[in-house]
Amino acid sequence: MNFEYNERTQTLLKQLRAFMQEEVYPIEKEYVHAVENGENRWQTPVMMQTLKQRAKDAGLWNLFLPEEYKPYGAGLSNAEYAPLCEEMGRVLFSSEIFNCSAPDTGNMEVLAKYGNEEQKKQWLEPLLNGEIRSAFAMTEPAVASSDATNIETSITRDGDEYVINGRKWYTSGAMNENCKIMVVMGKTDFEAARHQQQSQILVPMDTKGVSIVRPMAAMGYFDEPVGHAEVLFDNVRVPVSNLLLGEGRGFEIAQGRLGPGRIHHCMRLIGCAQRALDLACERVEQRVAFGKPLSKQQSVRESIAQMHCDIEQARLLTLKAADKMDRYGNKVSRDIIAAIKIVAPKMACKVIDEAIQMHGAAGTSQDYALSAMYAYARTIRLADGPDQVHMMQLGRNLIAEKNA
Amino acid sequence: MNFEYNERTQTLLKQLRAFMQEEVYPIEKEYVHAVENGENRWQTPVMMQTLKQRAKDAGLWNLFLPEEYKPYGAGLSNAEYAPLCEEMGRVLFSSEIFNCSAPDTGNMEVLAKYGNEEQKKQWLEPLLNGEIRSAFAMTEPAVASSDATNIETSITRDGDEYVINGRKWYTSGAMNENCKIMVVMGKTDFEAARHQQQSQILVPMDTKGVSIVRPMAAMGYFDEPVGHAEVLFDNVRVPVSNLLLGEGRGFEIAQGRLGPGRIHHCMRLIGCAQRALDLACERVEQRVAFGKPLSKQQSVRESIAQMHCDIEQARLLTLKAADKMDRYGNKVSRDIIAAIKIVAPKMACKVIDEAIQMHGAAGTSQDYALSAMYAYARTIRLADGPDQVHMMQLGRNLIAEKNA
Amino acid sequence: MNFEYNERTQTLLKQLRAFMQEEVYPIEKEYVHAVENGENRWQTPVMMQTLKQRAKDAGLWNLFLPEEYKPYGAGLSNAEYAPLCEEMGRVLFSSEIFNCSAPDTGNMEVLAKYGNEEQKKQWLEPLLNGEIRSAFAMTEPAVASSDATNIETSITRDGDEYVINGRKWYTSGAMNENCKIMVVMGKTDFEAARHQQQSQILVPMDTKGVSIVRPMAAMGYFDEPVGHAEVLFDNVRVPVSNLLLGEGRGFEIAQGRLGPGRIHHCMRLIGCAQRALDLACERVEQRVAFGKPLSKQQSVRESIAQMHCDIEQARLLTLKAADKMDRYGNKVSRDIIAAIKIVAPKMACKVIDEAIQMHGAAGTSQDYALSAMYAYARTIRLADGPDQVHMMQLGRNLIAEKNA
Amino acid sequence: MNFEYNERTQTLLKQLRAFMQEEVYPIEKEYVHAVENGENRWQTPVMMQTLKQRAKDAGLWNLFLPEEYKPYGAGLSNAEYAPLCEEMGRVLFSSEIFNCSAPDTGNMEVLAKYGNEEQKKQWLEPLLNGEIRSAFAMTEPAVASSDATNIETSITRDGDEYVINGRKWYTSGAMNENCKIMVVMGKTDFEAARHQQQSQILVPMDTKGVSIVRPMAAMGYFDEPVGHAEVLFDNVRVPVSNLLLGEGRGFEIAQGRLGPGRIHHCMRLIGCAQRALDLACERVEQRVAFGKPLSKQQSVRESIAQMHCDIEQARLLTLKAADKMDRYGNKVSRDIIAAIKIVAPKMACKVIDEAIQMHGAAGTSQDYALSAMYAYARTIRLADGPDQVHMMQLGRNLIAEKNA
Repeated sequence: MNFEYNERTQTLLKQLRAFMQEEVYPIEKEYVHAVENGENRWQTPVMMQTLKQRAKDAGLWNLFLPEEYKPYGAGLSNAEYAPLCEEMGRVLFSSEIFNCSAPDTGNMEVLAKYGNEEQKKQWLEPLLNGEIRSAFAMTEPAVASSDATNIETSITRDGDEYVINGRKWYTSGAMNENCKIMVVMGKTDFEAARHQQQSQILVPMDTKGVSIVRPMAAMGYFDEPVGHAEVLFDNVRVPVSNLLLGEGRGFEIAQGRLGPGRIHHCMRLIGCAQRALDLACERVEQRVAFGKPLSKQQSVRESIAQMHCDIEQARLLTLKAADKMDRYGNKVSRDIIAAIKIVAPKMACKVIDEAIQMHGAAGTSQDYALSAMYAYARTIRLADGPDQVHMMQLGRNLIAEKNA
Repeated sequence: MNFEYNERTQTLLKQLRAFMQEEVYPIEKEYVHAVENGENRWQTPVMMQTLKQRAKDAGLWNLFLPEEYKPYGAGLSNAEYAPLCEEMGRVLFSSEIFNCSAPDTGNMEVLAKYGNEEQKKQWLEPLLNGEIRSAFAMTEPAVASSDATNIETSITRDGDEYVINGRKWYTSGAMNENCKIMVVMGKTDFEAARHQQQSQILVPMDTKGVSIVRPMAAMGYFDEPVGHAEVLFDNVRVPVSNLLLGEGRGFEIAQGRLGPGRIHHCMRLIGCAQRALDLACERVEQRVAFGKPLSKQQSVRESIAQMHCDIEQARLLTLKAADKMDRYGNKVSRDIIAAIKIVAPKMACKVIDEAIQMHGAAGTSQDYALSAMYAYARTIRLADGPDQVHMMQLGRNLIAEKNA
Repeated sequence: MNFEYNERTQTLLKQLRAFMQEEVYPIEKEYVHAVENGENRWQTPVMMQTLKQRAKDAGLWNLFLPEEYKPYGAGLSNAEYAPLCEEMGRVLFSSEIFNCSAPDTGNMEVLAKYGNEEQKKQWLEPLLNGEIRSAFAMTEPAVASSDATNIETSITRDGDEYVINGRKWYTSGAMNENCKIMVVMGKTDFEAARHQQQSQILVPMDTKGVSIVRPMAAMGYFDEPVGHAEVLFDNVRVPVSNLLLGEGRGFEIAQGRLGPGRIHHCMRLIGCAQRALDLACERVEQRVAFGKPLSKQQSVRESIAQMHCDIEQARLLTLKAADKMDRYGNKVSRDIIAAIKIVAPKMACKVIDEAIQMHGAAGTSQDYALSAMYAYARTIRLADGPDQVHMMQLGRNLIAEKNA
Repeated sequence: MNFEYNERTQTLLKQLRAFMQEEVYPIEKEYVHAVENGENRWQTPVMMQTLKQRAKDAGLWNLFLPEEYKPYGAGLSNAEYAPLCEEMGRVLFSSEIFNCSAPDTGNMEVLAKYGNEEQKKQWLEPLLNGEIRSAFAMTEPAVASSDATNIETSITRDGDEYVINGRKWYTSGAMNENCKIMVVMGKTDFEAARHQQQSQILVPMDTKGVSIVRPMAAMGYFDEPVGHAEVLFDNVRVPVSNLLLGEGRGFEIAQGRLGPGRIHHCMRLIGCAQRALDLACERVEQRVAFGKPLSKQQSVRESIAQMHCDIEQARLLTLKAADKMDRYGNKVSRDIIAAIKIVAPKMACKVIDEAIQMHGAAGTSQDYALSAMYAYARTIRLADGPDQVHMMQLGRNLIAEKNA
């Protein structure tokens, strides 16, 4: 047992922290301002290009891609990448600077794993270079999508093409002007076994029949310039080669991306929560009420202590999950992956909410990232399955194991 | 003891519910859409004028003003008005329809109580007619305003005028195009006893030196078309007659408006929470996952039951507070007023959050009012003193009483 | 609407408080000591007889029995009795002083309602006089008894007798030396409709075949001298006239006693919680740590405030339930009766636990009643159906009503 | 980073689990029964001697003593011992079987560290052999002992002797017939600097002037046959050589034993909680209500999942604390030691309470260890400083570090 990060992680973390300190925190408000005052709100501010270049120059690029996808990526294990992912989580828009932002990370992994040479050339390489962005279309408005068997979007073969019909929403990334490609989950066979009905397919954004209906809000935020779109697929046709891995293997692909995806989301949320705590520690020392700094209030100290305990526990659980994934793979790690999905978003909501409370009205304002962070954390309690679905699965497994 | 609403309340409630059913729910989304797509976002949609006229015609107008302000208002007691206020809380913008929205209600009460004839004519009457709107400027960005002794805005006498200097924020209502008058809290004497330093003064919005710096967000929402403004007062001059009640009596005026104000906020939040629960009850019956409606899940039933219990308890506490205010006045009711301020906003946050969870991604979207309601409830945990300040006072009083 | 107790209640409450002050609090520890040091622990200390006589003399006797059972009892409504019941709850053993303790109250009500003249003479009158005690045998160790259809004890007719076989536990009251009669729930017909299988029958404690297996602990407490017994029924024979109301009506009788029974339990728990809060208020003022009384700590004040809010809300809910029962009866009040059973025990656990924490080690000791109160409150979260059963029913009903 | 136990731990854990399986679980109820039915309740059942011998034979003896105390003990690091300590925590009395029970462990460590040869021979060796037991007298009834400066017991030099006067309570272990020696904390100098007033001194139980006033209950439990005593020191005289380390160094000694002591308590509580969860998993599979096993209820699955997440997080935090102590010592690990003391007892209370709820009435009975475990966990929230003291310190440190 060893709770210390290895040297490689420590070195990268040090570099990343320095980068955040020098390049990101100083422009944090400016960036948000640039988004709000851009020509349109789905345009990434130009300063992002500069930041990306600096990150590349600093060797802080594509850190998420594990060894198996070499020559692409940094070749870090999940456990090595996780602390870096936390660090990026401290500023909501900063993952993109390092080309580590969702849903691109998952899409790149899927393309690296299942894409043919042409697809890699056309989509994966510009994605790895941070030149374009991508989207992942899974959730549907009409059904409880946490149960994948509910999905209603159809992918029907017609000669050399697949024809896609359906309506998706919360298709993250699809609002951005630079988003060029979508991975779409739908059903190729409504009659097959429960988890063999689904397939995943590549759909370029400019394909005929794809229309962006509207941006979706998440707790009052539209997450500009990335956004979450409602997307209509009306007889959208793509070549059969766009189908990933094979008909009926969509659920399998989804499962594969979920493990790392959940670790990333959880670590980012831990970063959010830690940032919120750091801000709170500063605030309570500066703010005076009823004759003394808030930091002298016993209840404030208790809150700060509890926030720290909650964060550290979620962090350790997530790191253990990453370590387990590295050692034994996705499937064996199923239970602990469910556990972090249950724990981290709720923890982040609680900690950030507490930090907001300590900031008073300012905590709810646009002057702090706290309320946007809260919205992100709150949304992740629903994204990729609500808490309850993961608790159901984990609870069921634990009971079964104990009674085996 | 009698937990049933009296006849007058029952009759009005029935009328109000019918009005909500016929006039408000059907245009709920349209109104929100009109705000978003208006010429500018601080303009009240024209349909509001129609709705106001219908409410007047239906005798559902100025319901908040108690007996003592006759001939103005409906002459309802706090306990009689409270259930009506809850009903209005079910739709965030609906209080304005009945001319019962904050901060106008508090401002009208202050004007009715302390205004001279001219002020009543100029400001109170158009307010009572729903022709103009008003703002209340209290919170300051630089200090913890929950401790009124921290306030830094100065109101300095200079001949026949007072000169006002300072910076306020979260001045609710001040963004609206139709907002004509502000009640401003500041200090006339920085050296006086703790609660005799403050005064309140009328400042017309178009006074020279008043500038709107920016709208303030509250948990991602700008509450258009009403808004919360950051306002700069730079050598703002108003006649001495604009000072309300007298120098050093600002804290006293503030105390007077707080009691009813808190009851209104709490009842509106109870209305929000009840609406959220009602929506959740419908949702879980319709939504199917893993082969059955969510409503068949034991955990969903438990949640629904707990939400109901939480709402009903907060409702009873608030109604008791209203009843106590009616019988014994503000001062004697101090502890229970603190209690409802502690209980109701937190309860509403919890219940609405739970309802969001039951709605899945839709619950976080613009298609439901849930996330806006959450933002409102969350904000009220800070507005008019954070929870902690009320808990401090209530706790201190209870301990003192027990050890007296 | 009126939140004030009526004159009758106020008068009785004043008398009861005086009695508690003069007769009960002063001997509180002595009584507990007498139980612990008695000849055997199932013997009621003789001082109880004196106390009972004084309560009778003071007119504070059989307060629980409503109007309909006149000439027996005080003829108070549920809403009138509830605040008195709360007061008695402040000292765990004090209900017996006023002949208002469970399960005698429920048994007396059942006997008054369904007993024949002979049964009334033999059992009801000595019970009403506080001369004997009684027990209620419902829960069984082998099955989840919250689901009444699970009950396995059989009541089989054999000529002029019923023969009872089964095993009960947590038969409250049955350990006491003075317990003479049991009301037993069993099944007369295992094949009948779900709620027509059960019957209730009178079984004198000294009937052949009845054996006390052992006393049952509840969270470490045996609740001497009352106790909860495991009771074995081995071919126990009683005359057919001992069957109450009729075969298959046991569930109906049970339902009838549950309403008032739950109100009593909840009010007693509210009394426990209020006492715990009162003790905490005194303790934190006296106890000094790190240079100041605990009462100056902001976190202590916040806790005290929250405890007060929680108690007051549960109190109002329970009073409303009592009022509703008085106006509309058991059946219409079903949902609010479920609500108080969900709310009050959990609230009492939380509040008492917090009071224990404020008392330090002393709070867990035999020097304070706090831990015994906690055990009582914790047990009531399970007695008469665990929280989850009531939440299931309430949740289901609310969803059904909303979707009707 | 590596979350797996090392080989040494894995081997010992396997042996320990086998021993628990073969020797402890099968006699668990028998042991409790033997305690209850012994000649007196402070006598350790004879079967304990047999169990101890078997543990010795199995090489599972004195596992707690780290490398530095060789030749005594197993020489395990804190991180190596922690998982074993968790395992022992699964049965409340089992630590003694392996000579790993408090307060003997702390006392042995203190004696090994600061005792002279004679003291080691007289007390340490029989303790290490499991022949006698010992007690630690720190908490006082009259003052908030979490603030060590409050301690009032005096240790006054008089020639070659120290004279001790004072009253202690919750002196764990002192009720046991086999308890021979106490470590007593008192003040040698009431005027010295805050943390130099205290000293620790050895007091044999049979010293004149030592009297056991009474056993103290902890949440209804007396923890027979170990017990917690109220002890009166009335002019108790011991030779000056009994003073440990030196006058004024009692706080320092206390600090030294706290680190490992807290890890042990926390790991034992994690063992309790894990056992409670294991029992719950079995129970819910077997118990049927409303037509299906409880394990099919969504709310039960959610609870089980949450319990697992809570346990695993507390476990990881405690293991990290142990690892940190091993690497950097007590002082550097101050914050994380505070964190586990805040987290683990509260977690254990919550998890065990939930398991009780799933067991219904049985969960509160003497047939399961659950309520005794709850009492233990609840008490640890107060022992060695209430939660609030640790939260105060941790909060204060975190704020100071962030603002340094």
